[in-house]
Amino acid sequence: MEPLLAELRTAVGAGAVLTDVDVTASYRRDMMPLAPHGQPLAVVLPTSTEQVQAVVRACAAARTPIVPRGAGSGLSGAANAVEGCVVLVTTKMNAILEIDPDNRLAVVEPGVVNLDLRDAVEKHGLFYPPDPSSYDWCTIGGNLSTNAGGLCCVKYGVTTDSVLGLDVVLADGELLRTGRRTVKGVAGYDLTKLFVGSEGTLGVITRATLALRPLPQAPATLVAAFGSTAAAGVAVSRVVTEGIVPSLMEIMDRTSIKAVEQYLKTDLNADAALLLCQSDSGGEAGRRELAAIEQACVAAGADLVYATEDLSEGRDLLTARRAVLTALEVYGAWLTDDVCVPRTRIADLIAGCERISESVGLRIAVVGHAGDGNMHPTIVYDPSSADEFARAQRAFDEILGLGLALGGTITGEHGVGKIKREWLAKEIGPVGLRVHRGIKRALDPENLFNPGSMFELL
Amino acid sequence: MEPLLAELRTAVGAGAVLTDVDVTASYRRDMMPLAPHGQPLAVVLPTSTEQVQAVVRACAAARTPIVPRGAGSGLSGAANAVEGCVVLVTTKMNAILEIDPDNRLAVVEPGVVNLDLRDAVEKHGLFYPPDPSSYDWCTIGGNLSTNAGGLCCVKYGVTTDSVLGLDVVLADGELLRTGRRTVKGVAGYDLTKLFVGSEGTLGVITRATLALRPLPQAPATLVAAFGSTAAAGVAVSRVVTEGIVPSLMEIMDRTSIKAVEQYLKTDLNADAALLLCQSDSGGEAGRRELAAIEQACVAAGADLVYATEDLSEGRDLLTARRAVLTALEVYGAWLTDDVCVPRTRIADLIAGCERISESVGLRIAVVGHAGDGNMHPTIVYDPSSADEFARAQRAFDEILGLGLALGGTITGEHGVGKIKREWLAKEIGPVGLRVHRGIKRALDPENLFNPGSMFELL
Ligand SMILES: Cc1cc2nc3c(=O)[nH]c(=O)nc-3n(C[C@H](O)[C@H](O)[C@H](O)COP(=O)(O)OP(=O)(O)OC[C@H]3O[C@@H](n4cnc5c(N)ncnc54)[C@H](O)[C@@H]3O)c2cc1C
Ligand SMILES: Cc1cc2nc3c(=O)[nH]c(=O)nc-3n(C[C@H](O)[C@H](O)[C@H](O)COP(=O)(O)OP(=O)(O)OC[C@H]3O[C@@H](n4cnc5c(N)ncnc54)[C@H](O)[C@@H]3O)c2cc1C
Repeated sequence: MEPLLAELRTAVGAGAVLTDVDVTASYRRDMMPLAPHGQPLAVVLPTSTEQVQAVVRACAAARTPIVPRGAGSGLSGAANAVEGCVVLVTTKMNAILEIDPDNRLAVVEPGVVNLDLRDAVEKHGLFYPPDPSSYDWCTIGGNLSTNAGGLCCVKYGVTTDSVLGLDVVLADGELLRTGRRTVKGVAGYDLTKLFVGSEGTLGVITRATLALRPLPQAPATLVAAFGSTAAAGVAVSRVVTEGIVPSLMEIMDRTSIKAVEQYLKTDLNADAALLLCQSDSGGEAGRRELAAIEQACVAAGADLVYATEDLSEGRDLLTARRAVLTALEVYGAWLTDDVCVPRTRIADLIAGCERISESVGLRIAVVGHAGDGNMHPTIVYDPSSADEFARAQRAFDEILGLGLALGGTITGEHGVGKIKREWLAKEIGPVGLRVHRGIKRALDPENLFNPGSMFELL
Repeated sequence: MEPLLAELRTAVGAGAVLTDVDVTASYRRDMMPLAPHGQPLAVVLPTSTEQVQAVVRACAAARTPIVPRGAGSGLSGAANAVEGCVVLVTTKMNAILEIDPDNRLAVVEPGVVNLDLRDAVEKHGLFYPPDPSSYDWCTIGGNLSTNAGGLCCVKYGVTTDSVLGLDVVLADGELLRTGRRTVKGVAGYDLTKLFVGSEGTLGVITRATLALRPLPQAPATLVAAFGSTAAAGVAVSRVVTEGIVPSLMEIMDRTSIKAVEQYLKTDLNADAALLLCQSDSGGEAGRRELAAIEQACVAAGADLVYATEDLSEGRDLLTARRAVLTALEVYGAWLTDDVCVPRTRIADLIAGCERISESVGLRIAVVGHAGDGNMHPTIVYDPSSADEFARAQRAFDEILGLGLALGGTITGEHGVGKIKREWLAKEIGPVGLRVHRGIKRALDPENLFNPGSMFELL
């Protein structure tokens, strides 16, 4: 038997070291079909920081790479196993250690599911903003490591904006404490925000101190239908320039509208684009915001605007947005891309995706967080057809090129992982890549953590 | 003549290289009297990124350290010259290159004065939140490098929350571009936020893309007087737990109240503490917020609460807060400390400062950003007395120890610079320090930039 396996069993207990290929198979990859993955030597499920340290030390000594993993809901292959690695799964470290309403913060282990934290702090009248659509199963550790966004970040920011401090096990097994429990602090480099979004390449997060906000008011909802994407784009721009900050502003293009109409057997009364907005400011302020959004939509040429303060009606109106991925599954497998463009270029992005769709001969539905320009063009293909898969891949890449050409970035929230390495290099250039490698080497000189993710160390 | 001086003259023009000791003297130190400083070989004032690159290359070749400098308003000695260095002053790079209201961003050179940017974007109905009290002379480059805070960060965050991307000249003269123009983006490590707050130790910022916000409503103002600091502390906690987010919440202790009363020849009607709050939500929402703050103050036992929606009256009410430092100058020189504690420990901090004041026999006035626990205990001493200066130094250190003991940090916004190196080591511990050194070495292996600031590289 591998001596490393024996050490891992000593570290976390025999029951928490999985090696049966049938079992480890489900830890081999995340939700991104394009990404390569290998066969792990073992999957370990530690329950404490000390156990993580022991695993890291054992793997470092054996020069066996570690791939940290949360729920595996990622869309970049970042949590995919590399051949012969140890997959370090943090889902069993799922305690909410503290909720401090007086200082509006929570201390959690990385395996806590996003929704569980939301629910727990809500009982104290508090709010943890980052809300990726996968919030009912993704973990805080994964959210931190991908700097996850979501629907409400147009108003409340992304994960990095809600983190005060981290505990991280480094490549030599030492425990680093970053940040603090206070709202402000500038003692030293901002290591906290360096680890946020580092996709498991610099260390294993074993604890996080998170900033909470007061629970917002119940949201009022507005839906606007447009006969052209350009008009919807103008509406978004108007909302921005009018100085309105909705708590949600999502867009659906023609293809996603049609798919949802068919799937939900309903008529969304929108030809080319649907905007879905919410304001959670409450009372008069909320009404003022919604009225201003309505005005912006009408001025931009909306065919139809409908607003409601009723909570459950509002939820119903959002059903269309939430149903897109499931609706697309009727036609085939989906492959979600993730670019972020300046808010003024949303219509151009959608138009470009229509061109790419025609050129590759595959359905591409664009949904996205219009409020911050973060678009998810979603390519539908037949997974049993190698040709369609290849064309899907081509479309995926062309969308990235389009995003860059529009002054955007190759990833708004899903990350680089194992599928956008070349594109990262393109976006940040040789100097940027050199700095990335320098920082990786400074923290993980032996390339222990998630090697080959984000960039090759060389 | 030094060959380096000749190269610097070629790089930036002879008129932009200052060597006359009488002239360079004013670039030797910032506003922190405790910090050591040396005599620079030269002060250079480049006007472009290319000139900065040429200066950096020349200094690197000559192994002459560079101390980047903005306006020199810093309070940690971070911009102080080290012996024989080149002080690279960015005040001539002061162009606002772009204001894009559609995407709510601005692109600026580092020498732009904070107030000039505020004024320029306000013309577009936009708002650049970070507002250090030195805003009428400090520069954006300095604000970025210290991650400056200010009065309104209780609602709008600190500098790092308003930065989208940076151009940075690295130690080898190469230009690094970090971040992007989009609201969201997770392509690679968050280098932008690593450079923010790095106090000129990792490179020279030559350009910044800044996120703007809609201009808030005109603020309504409230002042509350308390007979005990404990009661004021309770009021702050109540505001937090009630979920109110004021746009300003400042506190003045007994000593600062007395100093201001004497200086302004007025009666502030407060025995032990004064809270000054604003809400900029406007309309009904603003009134609701102010009423809730009033209620919290009354419930905490305020002796007197006064609220107004009148702008100029509101400004007058804040005069007391703004006058503190000038008022203290009547008694001697001031030495401002900067700790941040959990919001629940503000009263403990003030009480502790009273004890330290007694023990060192010097006046200590505590003012601070109560809304985020960032306190500025300000020690008054006679600069002509070596003994008083030594006692002031002792008090300064004891306040840092107190801040740490209360679960806080040794610097909320002023930075580590050349005065809190030992305290940084204490706060972040040996692992933290090792990671700092690793990152510094990765980016600046020859210790070219601001050596000995923040920590010694060894
Ligand atoms: C249907 C669907 C909708 C989605 N919607 C969104 C959305 O709206 N916004 C969004 O941002 N994302 C979204 N995602 C993507 C995904 O859910 C997020 O990236 C999420 O943050 C991943 O969390 P996870 O626990 O599944 O992490 P994993 O996928 O397991 O891992 C993600 C990365 O984090 C690292 N990691 C995990 N835990 C740790 C740890 N403790 N220490 C160090 N590194 C660690 C891994 O190595 C990997 O690099 C969606 C995914 C799906 C399938
Ligand atoms: C009366 C008074 C009130 C103050 N109030 C506040 C306050 O409310 N909040 C607050 O946060 N601070 C406050 N300060 C402190 C100070 O104004 C801030 O730290 C400010 O950000 C410094 O800006 P500066 O341009 O003066 O920078 P400097 O003091 O010249 O430099 C500060 C640091 O930035 C580095 N630096 C400057 N420019 C660059 C560049 N282009 N590239 C790389 N590094 C660079 C320097 O090397 C140094 O480390 C106050 C100071 C005074 C005197």
